[in-house]
Amino acid sequence: MVLSGKGGVGKSTFTAQLGWAFAADEQLLVCPLLNLSHQLHLLTKTLWQTGIMDVDICGPSIPTILGIASEQVHSSSSGWSPVYVQDNFAVMSVGFMLSSSKDAIMWRGPKKNGLISQFLKDVDWGDLDYLIIDTPPGTSDEHLSIVQYLKESGIDGAVLITTPQEVALQDVRREIDFCKKVGIRVLGLVENMSGFVCPSCKTESQIFKPSTGGAKKLAEDMGVEMLGAVPLDPRIGMSADRGVSFLDQYPDSPASTAYLDIIDSQSVYFLL
Amino acid sequence: MVLSGKGGVGKSTFTAQLGWAFAADEQLLVCPLLNLSHQLHLLTKTLWQTGIMDVDICGPSIPTILGIASEQVHSSSSGWSPVYVQDNFAVMSVGFMLSSSKDAIMWRGPKKNGLISQFLKDVDWGDLDYLIIDTPPGTSDEHLSIVQYLKESGIDGAVLITTPQEVALQDVRREIDFCKKVGIRVLGLVENMSGFVCPSCKTESQIFKPSTGGAKKLAEDMGVEMLGAVPLDPRIGMSADRGVSFLDQYPDSPASTAYLDIIDSQSVYFLL
Repeated sequence: MVLSGKGGVGKSTFTAQLGWAFAADEQLLVCPLLNLSHQLHLLTKTLWQTGIMDVDICGPSIPTILGIASEQVHSSSSGWSPVYVQDNFAVMSVGFMLSSSKDAIMWRGPKKNGLISQFLKDVDWGDLDYLIIDTPPGTSDEHLSIVQYLKESGIDGAVLITTPQEVALQDVRREIDFCKKVGIRVLGLVENMSGFVCPSCKTESQIFKPSTGGAKKLAEDMGVEMLGAVPLDPRIGMSADRGVSFLDQYPDSPASTAYLDIIDSQSVYFLL
Repeated sequence: MVLSGKGGVGKSTFTAQLGWAFAADEQLLVCPLLNLSHQLHLLTKTLWQTGIMDVDICGPSIPTILGIASEQVHSSSSGWSPVYVQDNFAVMSVGFMLSSSKDAIMWRGPKKNGLISQFLKDVDWGDLDYLIIDTPPGTSDEHLSIVQYLKESGIDGAVLITTPQEVALQDVRREIDFCKKVGIRVLGLVENMSGFVCPSCKTESQIFKPSTGGAKKLAEDMGVEMLGAVPLDPRIGMSADRGVSFLDQYPDSPASTAYLDIIDSQSVYFLL
């Protein structure tokens, strides 16, 4: 589960990168941290079956970021078919169910909860290795429902995304409290939009200044793992708008290195 | 009412600047666009009574941005007393009602709606000239309840805030659709984080690139007024973290000029 507290910190973009990375077998085979059972798994199966469930009902951006915004959900005898980015990468979002992308989804909690329940029960996800859940900002209906509906199968953990400034961090503190209260393990914290390197003179600017120590200090204070910091690269947003994988487009960029380090890191890797 | 669709685009920061500007009589006296009734009003009253109601229940950032995060709400015979930034500037937020700022507010829709109703009925706002409502991202419980509860008194209009990239704009399109469907006048659109000027070499970078034409094109396409564009200035976020007015701290910055042009612009000025 990918959580943030505050909106606009890069949750959906991170979710998409995570999905692309999990669905690309090459990323997984080179990781030296796999335990034996995972290694055995790889001997018989080279592609992980990956799913993304977008529960940001009023502001679904996953379809655009994954380049599948024009797709529609189809019904089959075994339920709704998710939309496939590639054979082993299934996605479900309310964005696939609207007649126009300009339509407001004016739904109160119960209706949102009903759809989330359907996403879990009525979608033919197949046999997934990973299900990544992209959430809206906050700690309300969508978050509580996901926890409630997945109580039996369990949620492996939550990755928290933030930007460096205090007004974002204070929402993350609340999100950590949420995880504690509902019993979800916090896999770690990712600081997004960490610094911006001017393309002209290479000077680094802190656009969202870590006035209270940034994510690193928060992670220390709250006892959660700091998974990494991704620099602010305007090409990340451009890739999201165009629906292409930033990791594929700019594999040698410092932001891609940061993303891959985070994705390959022990906590996220083993537990998601 | 300040709306966005997407989170993290600067709604609360804009709301705070709007509040500070409305509460500062000097800003109002120099505006040449006032009509006669407003001018007569000014002859007898030099300070506007301004209120901000923060209905972002799960992620209240208004108290921090206005520098009043440690304040508490008090009860009196006439109801809850709002927190005052200055004599003519009252603020109400769930942030004032928590025992710790780290506490998650894990409330579903009905409980959030109940508090919003109390904010309107049980708070002793006094005689307000302006009530600015800061909303969470989306078009769900909080937004529908505000519209429902203020049906009789009416809402003068909504200012929409966005950043330039397509994934933010698509949420704004939904927000415009929301306003149309519930009958709220769109006062106009503000583009935030428009461009970043490197402090070292003065090169301007588009951090959040307007890959589909930015807010200006959206405003043209959707027939809403473009109120202005505010450049990305890291000092805005710093001021928000420190709870001080950016307009007061950096009055000569291009971002302050942009803010004041927007605030003084006819649409926002007359109708809010």
